[in-house]
Amino acid sequence: MKLYDSPVAPNPRRVRVFLAEKGIVVPTEIVDLAKLEQKGSAFTAINPLQRIPVLELDSGEVLSESVAICRYFEEFHPDPPLFGRDGLEKARVEMWQRRAELEFFFPIALAFRHSHPAMKEMEKPQIGELVEPNRARAINFARFLDAELAKRPYLAGDFFSIADITAMVGADFARAARIVFPEDIPHFARWRAEVSARPSASA
Amino acid sequence: MKLYDSPVAPNPRRVRVFLAEKGIVVPTEIVDLAKLEQKGSAFTAINPLQRIPVLELDSGEVLSESVAICRYFEEFHPDPPLFGRDGLEKARVEMWQRRAELEFFFPIALAFRHSHPAMKEMEKPQIGELVEPNRARAINFARFLDAELAKRPYLAGDFFSIADITAMVGADFARAARIVFPEDIPHFARWRAEVSARPSASA
Repeated sequence: MKLYDSPVAPNPRRVRVFLAEKGIVVPTEIVDLAKLEQKGSAFTAINPLQRIPVLELDSGEVLSESVAICRYFEEFHPDPPLFGRDGLEKARVEMWQRRAELEFFFPIALAFRHSHPAMKEMEKPQIGELVEPNRARAINFARFLDAELAKRPYLAGDFFSIADITAMVGADFARAARIVFPEDIPHFARWRAEVSARPSASA
Repeated sequence: MKLYDSPVAPNPRRVRVFLAEKGIVVPTEIVDLAKLEQKGSAFTAINPLQRIPVLELDSGEVLSESVAICRYFEEFHPDPPLFGRDGLEKARVEMWQRRAELEFFFPIALAFRHSHPAMKEMEKPQIGELVEPNRARAINFARFLDAELAKRPYLAGDFFSIADITAMVGADFARAARIVFPEDIPHFARWRAEVSARPSASA
């Protein structure tokens, strides 16, 4: 088994944090994004969609998509559960994972990709008009989360889940998109400090 | 239980097809998108993110996000399984569901939102530069799918899954984004004809 990884991109970090929470160690191979290695023929043969992370199973089968890789490990190493424990929790985790991704992680990534000079070669064309609206979406979602996190410790309930991982990795990556979170969202700040203090956060 | 629905938007159709495959009937209430009812105060109280579909449970709890609503029904009405049967299938379905969504359904929706006159009020600003690259992404993904569907009947294997629903609903919505699929992708065309012939496709 091998995980194609990168220390600089946020998606592989989601998988690393997930694995750290499960206590699973998987051999990794770094894909050099600065050299556009993910678009080279060797990596394209592994994932035609030219994205990381990718998990190569011992059978040779390849799984791409961070959340699919996480689900693979959830199925085969269920403890601790990070997708919810019963049916209702699983639906709530799915909802919050997706909200965190679609309304927060992706807007942050878009603001980064369309503003950062290092992305000029990878994001053609960079569209400046996308930057401010996506920064604003991320900040709006942080405010929305603040109100939700006043009611419970974590995004999907009283337990840490993959939804928290997506939101934490997004929040940390926001700096690269030059997004500054407001100071008057104490519940968001409390949650962020707590999830960031978990040993898995350094993954 | 009640499903907030719309006959004109693609996301609620994903849930309707999913429910039809399971043979589940849920009372629905139509949200009038043309009148921006989803942004009104009554609906915002139900889903602050102002998106449909939304499932309101008998407990009063609200679930948003199409895939989360589908997962809820998968958990409580597991037959027929549409998220995969065992661990490996579940990971594959997750991967293909996400690929179909991120590389096909979303680009199609973006091309529509940023080109269609009816979206002027909802998508501010419409960014013309986004239209052609997203049309091209959708067509590239159809070609990629064609090569994959030469090897197996459905996206994630030899069984129909939520990944097929996402891809079918995306393909049908492509017309509204004025995307014309190429004629030289016979496996994509075979798959599309097959999934469209299922009774659930009319949902």
